[in-house]
Amino acid sequence: MNDLTQTPEMLIANLGARARKASALLAQVSDAQKAQALTLAAQALRDAAPAIAAANARDMENAAANGLSPAMLDRLRLDAGRIAATADGVDQVASLPNPLGSIIDRSERPNGLVLERVRVPLGVIGIIYESRPNVTADAAALCLRAGNAVILRGGSEAVESNRAIHAAMLSGIVAAGLPADAVQIVPTTDRAAVGALLKAAQFVDLIIPRGGKSLVARVQEEARVPVLAHLDGINHSYVDAAADADMACALVVNAKMRRTGICGATETVLIDRAFPAAARVVAALLDAGCAVRGDADVQALDNRVTAAREEDWDTEYLDAIVSVRMVDGLDDALDHIAAHGSHHTDAIITQDGERAERFLNAVDSAIVMWNASTQFADGGEFGLGAEIGISTGRLHARGPVALEGLTTYKWLVRGMGQARP
Amino acid sequence: MNDLTQTPEMLIANLGARARKASALLAQVSDAQKAQALTLAAQALRDAAPAIAAANARDMENAAANGLSPAMLDRLRLDAGRIAATADGVDQVASLPNPLGSIIDRSERPNGLVLERVRVPLGVIGIIYESRPNVTADAAALCLRAGNAVILRGGSEAVESNRAIHAAMLSGIVAAGLPADAVQIVPTTDRAAVGALLKAAQFVDLIIPRGGKSLVARVQEEARVPVLAHLDGINHSYVDAAADADMACALVVNAKMRRTGICGATETVLIDRAFPAAARVVAALLDAGCAVRGDADVQALDNRVTAAREEDWDTEYLDAIVSVRMVDGLDDALDHIAAHGSHHTDAIITQDGERAERFLNAVDSAIVMWNASTQFADGGEFGLGAEIGISTGRLHARGPVALEGLTTYKWLVRGMGQARP
Repeated sequence: MNDLTQTPEMLIANLGARARKASALLAQVSDAQKAQALTLAAQALRDAAPAIAAANARDMENAAANGLSPAMLDRLRLDAGRIAATADGVDQVASLPNPLGSIIDRSERPNGLVLERVRVPLGVIGIIYESRPNVTADAAALCLRAGNAVILRGGSEAVESNRAIHAAMLSGIVAAGLPADAVQIVPTTDRAAVGALLKAAQFVDLIIPRGGKSLVARVQEEARVPVLAHLDGINHSYVDAAADADMACALVVNAKMRRTGICGATETVLIDRAFPAAARVVAALLDAGCAVRGDADVQALDNRVTAAREEDWDTEYLDAIVSVRMVDGLDDALDHIAAHGSHHTDAIITQDGERAERFLNAVDSAIVMWNASTQFADGGEFGLGAEIGISTGRLHARGPVALEGLTTYKWLVRGMGQARP
Repeated sequence: MNDLTQTPEMLIANLGARARKASALLAQVSDAQKAQALTLAAQALRDAAPAIAAANARDMENAAANGLSPAMLDRLRLDAGRIAATADGVDQVASLPNPLGSIIDRSERPNGLVLERVRVPLGVIGIIYESRPNVTADAAALCLRAGNAVILRGGSEAVESNRAIHAAMLSGIVAAGLPADAVQIVPTTDRAAVGALLKAAQFVDLIIPRGGKSLVARVQEEARVPVLAHLDGINHSYVDAAADADMACALVVNAKMRRTGICGATETVLIDRAFPAAARVVAALLDAGCAVRGDADVQALDNRVTAAREEDWDTEYLDAIVSVRMVDGLDDALDHIAAHGSHHTDAIITQDGERAERFLNAVDSAIVMWNASTQFADGGEFGLGAEIGISTGRLHARGPVALEGLTTYKWLVRGMGQARP
């Protein structure tokens, strides 16, 4: 087949068929061998650091010439420290407990059949990401450790960096005796290949987008393959009437301001009118350098507050801006979250255990917290090891997705000749 | 809004928005109340039996006038016995253990945060089914017990029966204090409404098709909402060299012939050349009234065997027909299953435990069996209570799907004021 006549669909079908074969082989590889492959891949990344840095320098030069923003250039940049951290991340995935083979449940039927559900790999996973080249290594390591073949498609501005990282990892993977097609990168920057990958349900079991809202929106819109993702993190911290004032100030400031650009950051603070220290909470946010957009009651608390518009309640700022609204108790807060939330992470701050449990039960989000900062919404903070992403979908895996979310199960039935009556 | 100007998309958006609201209310309803709603619905079905039978008689009359096949007429028919069995089925779902609220796992982090994953309802489920009106009650009961709102779309030939069943169940559901929109039926037989339902990802979390291959294929092709289903059950029984000959004959005949029309029926028998009683197995199938299509070696065993064509290895007969192939041991059998199976249910018959475990590990199907009939592939036989279907997909739920498959989880995080460092 001449490359010039190969359509994106043919290209993806070829990658997909090879991934399927690799996936079948991987399912038979021992966990020790997979862990060793990652250890070798991490070492190969360290050995290839000069080549990776050189490839990244070429990407950076092109990106600068193409006028990429300073923020995007920073994401694209790999220095010795970032390459070392990437290799360390691969080693860390190698050290996680084996996610496969465990028995989820077991039962013996009256007829003597013994049933078990055991964890097995998901199959073939497609990762679509933007300019951060470290995702090439992180995502490949997680998918592989869970026994999956992976097809990677990074941003075109990182193409040289991604190829260099992929080549290094592959040398380690192959040295450990794993199939080379276990980790493939889409060998073209043609955007049509992304469309073809998103529709390749025959070859790909799950697509995980890693990047900004426009990437996730496109993937969710176009994909025929199931997608694990979150579009928004419009997260709420609700300060209940019975909140401890010091705790409320500390948690709200942390939830909003610790890092404003992560999906677990609080975007809206709801304060019960009956909470006596609302002005202190608002002042704490302002004093921390946060712009506060409030309803009329919040504006009355502090003259630094500007007026919130209706769209503020549906905005993920990812910046040092917060919307604040006074509510009439827990039910009003729940209504606001149901109307404006994105089912990611929401928290209540209160000393009243009964209201806290009502909040935990009633809020329909992947993560619901009591007296904790929404910034804890993270697989590492949850003790899951490295995460591949956070899902606000309701199927398969919800919240932080780590190794377990990259597995499925099958039923094993052991009999002694039972026929069905 | 005038009905005449309402598009299918508007109709589904209206049903969907109401289902979403009902779903939020249902999430706060106690399990006892949901179980009581089903008990009352079952009683209402019994009370309404004459009205349901009359509605069904109208459907049967129209269907006969439209020339429906005898098989389809039989599926459509409701008599007193079938209505009673349907009501009993609803009672049975009421008696199953509560699928919600259980803690999947729990951990305490070094910083003192306590994490739990708890089972919660999935949300809104769409059921698309053909002419069997009992699905209206079965599916509604399962969805409701798991705390979900459901939108039902049955075959147009069963429209009167479905409306009568729905009206009866609704009276019980409302009497128990549950929202009427918890169980809705699409109030039109316009096929375009199905298309709109399949694309209503904003309102529907999961679509489950119940019916034949053409329905499932259409749903999988058109849906933008995730689908739980199986297209085919091309199941294999592999008779290993070390199989017990009597057991092999009994299991193969049961797996194929007990009921030929169910998705767990064996469609292809693979026999190791080294198994000494191959002719007995083939004869047992023929003597049981099964047509055998075999490769040249199988034809040589019995002159009643006809020649299998290549497409026979990829055919789900759902009839008293089986394809039989001789293979060169376990690896050859695994290759055949990987190439031709549909990832539903496959079995090995052997006295060799090591080879059995290799088969259980290597076959990539939802259900893999050792010395048991593939006809056991059924949620009831697995002890799950009533099943909503069997999934060959790899995400969320695999194999028989019962109440647990109609739930998801959320993360609860309880702290004492922890901010993230």
